[in-house]
This record gives sequence, C-alpha cells and structure tokens, in this order.
Amino acid sequence: MEWHTDDDGTTMASTASILDGNSFKAEDADGLDPRTRALTERRRVLGSAYRLFYRHPVELVRGRGAHAWDAEGNEYLDLYNNVPSVGHAHPRVVEAVARQMSELNTHTRYLHPAVLDYADDLLSTMPDEIDRVMFVCTGSEANDLALRVGREFTGGSAWIATSEAYHGNTALVSAHSPSLRNGEEMDPTLRIVDPPDTYRLGSETADGAGSWWLTRVAEAIAEIESSGDGFAGLILDSSFSSDGIFLGEPGMIRAALDLVHAHGGVVIADEVQPGFGRTGEAFWGFDRHGFVPDLVTTGKPMGNGFPIAAMAARREVLDAFATRRPYFNTFGGNPVAVSAAQAVLDVLRDEGLQARALSVGAQLRDALRDLGHAHPAIGDVRGSGQYTGLEIVADRETKEPGTGIALDLLEELRDRRVLTSVCGPNNSVLKLRPPLAFEAGDIPRLVEALDGSLTALGV
Amino acid sequence: MEWHTDDDGTTMASTASILDGNSFKAEDADGLDPRTRALTERRRVLGSAYRLFYRHPVELVRGRGAHAWDAEGNEYLDLYNNVPSVGHAHPRVVEAVARQMSELNTHTRYLHPAVLDYADDLLSTMPDEIDRVMFVCTGSEANDLALRVGREFTGGSAWIATSEAYHGNTALVSAHSPSLRNGEEMDPTLRIVDPPDTYRLGSETADGAGSWWLTRVAEAIAEIESSGDGFAGLILDSSFSSDGIFLGEPGMIRAALDLVHAHGGVVIADEVQPGFGRTGEAFWGFDRHGFVPDLVTTGKPMGNGFPIAAMAARREVLDAFATRRPYFNTFGGNPVAVSAAQAVLDVLRDEGLQARALSVGAQLRDALRDLGHAHPAIGDVRGSGQYTGLEIVADRETKEPGTGIALDLLEELRDRRVLTSVCGPNNSVLKLRPPLAFEAGDIPRLVEALDGSLTALGV
Repeated sequence: MEWHTDDDGTTMASTASILDGNSFKAEDADGLDPRTRALTERRRVLGSAYRLFYRHPVELVRGRGAHAWDAEGNEYLDLYNNVPSVGHAHPRVVEAVARQMSELNTHTRYLHPAVLDYADDLLSTMPDEIDRVMFVCTGSEANDLALRVGREFTGGSAWIATSEAYHGNTALVSAHSPSLRNGEEMDPTLRIVDPPDTYRLGSETADGAGSWWLTRVAEAIAEIESSGDGFAGLILDSSFSSDGIFLGEPGMIRAALDLVHAHGGVVIADEVQPGFGRTGEAFWGFDRHGFVPDLVTTGKPMGNGFPIAAMAARREVLDAFATRRPYFNTFGGNPVAVSAAQAVLDVLRDEGLQARALSVGAQLRDALRDLGHAHPAIGDVRGSGQYTGLEIVADRETKEPGTGIALDLLEELRDRRVLTSVCGPNNSVLKLRPPLAFEAGDIPRLVEALDGSLTALGV
Repeated sequence: MEWHTDDDGTTMASTASILDGNSFKAEDADGLDPRTRALTERRRVLGSAYRLFYRHPVELVRGRGAHAWDAEGNEYLDLYNNVPSVGHAHPRVVEAVARQMSELNTHTRYLHPAVLDYADDLLSTMPDEIDRVMFVCTGSEANDLALRVGREFTGGSAWIATSEAYHGNTALVSAHSPSLRNGEEMDPTLRIVDPPDTYRLGSETADGAGSWWLTRVAEAIAEIESSGDGFAGLILDSSFSSDGIFLGEPGMIRAALDLVHAHGGVVIADEVQPGFGRTGEAFWGFDRHGFVPDLVTTGKPMGNGFPIAAMAARREVLDAFATRRPYFNTFGGNPVAVSAAQAVLDVLRDEGLQARALSVGAQLRDALRDLGHAHPAIGDVRGSGQYTGLEIVADRETKEPGTGIALDLLEELRDRRVLTSVCGPNNSVLKLRPPLAFEAGDIPRLVEALDGSLTALGV
C-alpha cells in the first residue's frame, strides 16, 4: 500500500487494496465538474475509510424500480443494488414504514404482535427445522451473533470461510472475512478455503466443481481437527458473491455442507446475497442446494434498505447461547423495521418476483452469451435468477483475469448510464445484481451499453 | 442461575442475572389476560434471549410525545424511552423519513449532499478538535468501531470501563460491557472501575466524588501500565446510566479524563444516554464536564428510533485506523437515515428541547424531593435535565438498596400507567429518562402515581 497526505493533513490511501476495484481516488479529482469535485472534497469530513464508486463518481438523487436518476436528471439502469431488493422507493414499503412510524416505533421489551406475525411468516419460508429467529439491525450484527451462537453450541472456536468472503464489519466478523485480510488480522483459528471456481474448474456440477470443493472443505476440517482448535463450522454465502459469483448447479455444494455436519460443525448460511428469492430457483440460497443449515443470517435487502436483519436458527443450536448469554438487541425487530420487512415479503409474493427472477435472469444470461460471440473479453457468463457474474478475461484460452479491462468497462458503462461493479479475487467479474424489479425489457439497453463499451475498449 | 424447560422443550431462564430487575418470567403467565398470555407464549419463536418488561407485560400500539397507548386504549406516561428522543412518532421525523424513502435510499458509495450537510451540522455541535464523523447503524456498531480505532491509535489493547456499563451487543463490545460479566467473558485486558456513587460518597463535586473516582481511574491505569498490556483508554457513559445514574456537578469527572490523556490513552464518550441535549446543561455529556474526548459515539436517539448511529473523532486519532484498515459500512449514513437524524437536530433546536430539559428536569427533581418527605423509601433524587435517578432504599440511614421495593414499585407504577424501569448494581434506582417531549404539566401525574404506589407498598 502507498499513502499520501492531502492538503488539510488527512492521510489518504492512494493505491491500496482498500481501494480495490471500483474506487474514486484523490488523483481522479482534476477532471471532475465543479459540483462533483466539491462534493468529493467535502467527504473528507467522513475520514479516510469511506470509499466512493467510480473515477467519475455518481450523485444519485432518485430511484424507482431498477432505475435511478442523478442530480442533473440523467437516468441510470441499476444493475448493482440488491439492498432495495424489490425496487428503489417501492411505494408499499414506503407506505408501511410511514404508517407504522406515525403510530409507534419502540422495542421488543413491550409486546407487539407485528414482530411475531413477521417471525412466523419469515420462518414459514424456511425448512421446519429452523424454528427460531432473532432480529437485529444489520447483517454484521446478525453474523456477529451467529458466530458466537455456533461457538457456544459446538464448543469449538475454529471456522472455515471462503477466500474472498465478506461477512460484515464488526471486529469479530471482520476477523472472519478473508476479503479484508490485507488490512485486518484474521482470527488465528480461521481456515480459508478457495471457492469452487466453476469457470476454471470447467464444471458446475456436484460431481465436478462440487467434488473439488468437498475436498477443500475436508482438508480444512482435517487441519482444524488435528490442530486441537475445536471445529465450530462453516460460514458461507452460497452464491460465493465476493469470491466471484459461483452459483453452480443446484446441489453442487451439498456434499461439503453435509461433511461439516458429519464432523459436528454448524453451517451459517449468510443469505444477504442469495436470499429472498434472488436466485429464482429457491427462496433461500441454501435451499437451492437441498441443504438445511443451522443458522441463517440476513441483511438489509430484508427491509428494502430499512435497517433490519435477522438470524434464524435451529432451536437446539440457538438454545446453548440464548439461555446462557446475555444478549440484548432491543431495537432489532421494532414495529417499524418489521413493517418494512413484512411489506418486502408481501411484495415479493404479490409481484411474483422469485419466478420473474428465474425467467428474466435466464434471458439476460442468454443475451450476454450471444454478446460474447462478438467480444472475446467476455470469458464467462454464469449465475442464477437475478444474480449474474460476467467474467472479463485478458485471454479466453488461458482465462487470464481481465482486471484492467473490467475496471475500464465499469467507467464506460457508467458513462452509458448503467450502474454495476466488480467482484472476485482479481476484480475481474462484473456483478450484475439488480433490484428484483429489473425487467426483461431492460435487457436490450444493458446489452447495448455493454456492446458499446466493449467496442470502445476494443475488446 | 437456574433453568427450566417449558412445554415445547425450550430452555428458559427462570431466575438469573439475564432476567435481572424488570423482567417477565414464565411463571408470571398464569395471572395474565388471555391476549397478553397468548402474545407472551408466541414469543418463544424469538428464542430465550429476549426479555420482556414487567410481570404483567404491556402491549403498546401508539405513541405521541411522552405518552403511549396500549391495545385497549389505555394511555401511559412514558418515563423510560430515550430512543424516541424528541417524542414518540414526531411528525417531522416521520415526514422526513417518508419523503426521503419515496425518493432514494442508497449507500455512501454514491455522492449525496445530505450526509455531508448532516455531518457538518452534527460536528458543529461538538468542540473544534472533533472534526471527523463516520456513520453506522447502531450504537453497538459505533462502539465496536471506536474500540478498534482507539486500539489502533494507541497501540494498546487494555481499556477501562465502569462496573455496570453496557456499551452494546457485538462480541467485542460485549466483552467491554461489565454489566454482562455474569454471562459473558470480559476481555482479559479490561479493567473495571466502580462509578462515583454520589449518593454513598455524599458528594457531587470534583473535589469530593470526582477526586474519589480519579483515584480509582489512576489505580486502573497503574495496573495496566505495570501489566504490560498497553493502555488503550477509557470507554465511558458520562451519565453512568446503568451504574445507577451519577451525573454529579458539571466538571466532576474531568480530572480523571485528563489523567487518561496524560497517560496516552484515548477517551471514548458513549453519548447514547447523555447526548443530544438530555442533560440540559450541555448538548453532550462530555461537554458538561468541560472535557474534549477523542471519540464520540451515539446511538438510536440520534434518529428518534430510526437505526442510525455515528462515531465522531479527532482526525489524528481516526486516521491511524481509517487509512490502514478496511472498514465498510456502506449503509451507515444513507440518505433516509440522515434525513431522520437531521429532523431530530432541527426539532431539538426549533422546540428548544435542551433548555426545556434543564427546567423541566429541575422541577421534576424538586417535586420528587418533596415526595421524599412522605416516603422514607426515597433515598436519593439525582440527575440533570431530563435524566433523573430515584434511588429506593430499604433503610435511609444505612442506604441499603431497596431492590425488592423498587421492583414492586415498577409494577405499581405500570398499573397506574406510568412506564419506567430500574438500573444500578442492585436494580434499586428508578430510571426516569423520558422522551424530551415530557412536559412540566406531566409532573403532577407522575408524582401522584409514585405517591399512590409507595403508599400502596407501605414505604
């Protein structure tokens, strides 16, 4: 990493893994219009940790469905934001929040039926074994709690996580988020496994990539067992989002998850990315793989951006913690947050967004594969439902990651008013993860923008 | 602790420090009306960690100002809830949230002026030295971050906290919250100091209770320095809320905080309780004591219950962390959260709530002291602004804590439709911490309810 100090004495990262991928850097400021430049300069009040997307940052002021508008009235197609899961500013969510806020917003130490109605409704989407749910405010809080619950139940301390996983920002969760490992100490008992890179393994099946991954997980378990650290389990985003998006065929990773159970570990399914119908094939990412985890964590897509999150659990796994440890999150599950979350569940069902994700996503990937015939930089198109990874390569034969192309492509797309970003260990995978309001009718515009951008880059 | 298992196999705490003080217990269910009983039974879906206030729980459905209504339409006077800081369901906060939610709710990786306008406004309420602010979603996230920032800056790991302090629910913050120490392992480097109990020390001054506390802090620093753990600093709620509410005279604890600085430690001012004008005498608790901390953390009162929180910082203290560590809380500071927080600041100013807190609080304590002439169980009335501790004693001479009386008193007050709770190491201090909308006109009703309750208890 390198650092420099700006005019008012603030040290700023200039090139660093903190500013990996899609990031504005201080040296980008010169070419900006005065308003954008002034806003970027005012952000020093937030300190040096904040990251801003794009060399030419975007100022968004309004959103509807999968569309957003900047301060000058330009309209963008949003292929990036999963937090407004049922669409930017969905009127039913807005109305539910406004209505409940004008009544009462208080904590769970008073009785309120809304939190219980929602708890029952949420659990009805999960396997019967998962019969308890605790509410918190963020995915980070949910994973922080889940790691402690899993440790209490197993008596072990050592977790397995994937090599680019990001599970949240608390001290404990950061130490179990290998994507942060260049700047943050990992928990000394954490074991890191590579994801099943379906593109380079050339397989999306349980027998192929799944079997390869089973071996990696088995090795990690064996290492933990021989170390004496005590095996706690596996924390996993089953869409392998920050690892590069490897949905694979349904069932691909089931054997590895079964192995965790066979060795007495618990599985935390971090559903911030694949949950709430995004993959089309199932309501939950774990369900796609035919597996029942012990702990399920969710984040802000649950409330379309209203800060509500949850940890659902098998009763017997939760009990070891919940009956012994003092844990208070009085505001998790307050009536306003729960109203937002209930509206999201209702909209998902009423608008048939899971089924639509399945068909729109398939059409999108077909269109992108067609585009690949004209552009050799498109190495792979993969995904499920409204979650698509478009891997950019420097060379199709060697599958060498096309990091530089991908980062330039982001800027070209931004200039064509399509919002997305990159993921994967080399920042070479375009993350196409729109609000579920993204429609088949939006596909041609995306394809045109990609075609124009790749052509402009000569790739 | 003792445990029992209820009908469906859930283990429930029966008598335990987790259920300290004001808590519904399973054995209280028999006497409840059918609806209340059904709701308490449905709560098993939330697992065993959730706590419910009162032997006879309250189902709140509506709130306005410092008043709330239950499902049967009964009106309650709210002396407990600081989270709806400017009043339950304040229309300006509701309107601000609804308006911004209907426009856009996205993260800080796009530009938006609202977060910068609010950052500037918030910092304008603090001393000039504190010139950076990071936004998160909860007070727990703010303290989790602050502990790490302080460690990075000092290179030390050992903090000091007070003996009943509660700073939040993440793994790291729980381990620095001595109020949880019966169920949760404390960080092995944490040093715990008793609070300046102004009642038992018989002093509220810098020379008296402040000097006593200075000695306690000095002893803790000396112990850390001789241990080689490395001194990180002190994390403090300057109102000593869960310790029993010891505001003391302005300046009382300044010498101890200066000593932390003199030994190279940082001070984290956890302002969830005393901040945003509650004490009347200053906008921030630390300011009351004439001290400038290094890190200032806030919680949900900042957004009147909308989940927004912040960590403000001296630039040089933050920089050590923010330039080296990857920290993402993209949703902290989103435009909706910031709109809620801006509305709260605006209402605080426009309605003159800090000045009113000063006068209403003083009138309240005068009235409570008068009531003490008739009820020997009132041992002490203390506080500042809209934060009052009413300590119940079994014996005024010996100042023996009146825990049993205090817990019975809560139920009597609840039946007279006054909501409050208890704090302090013996759960003997009534925590009178209403929304700042509490008015002088509400005082006679509170006094009458207290008089009737204490008379009914014969104390």
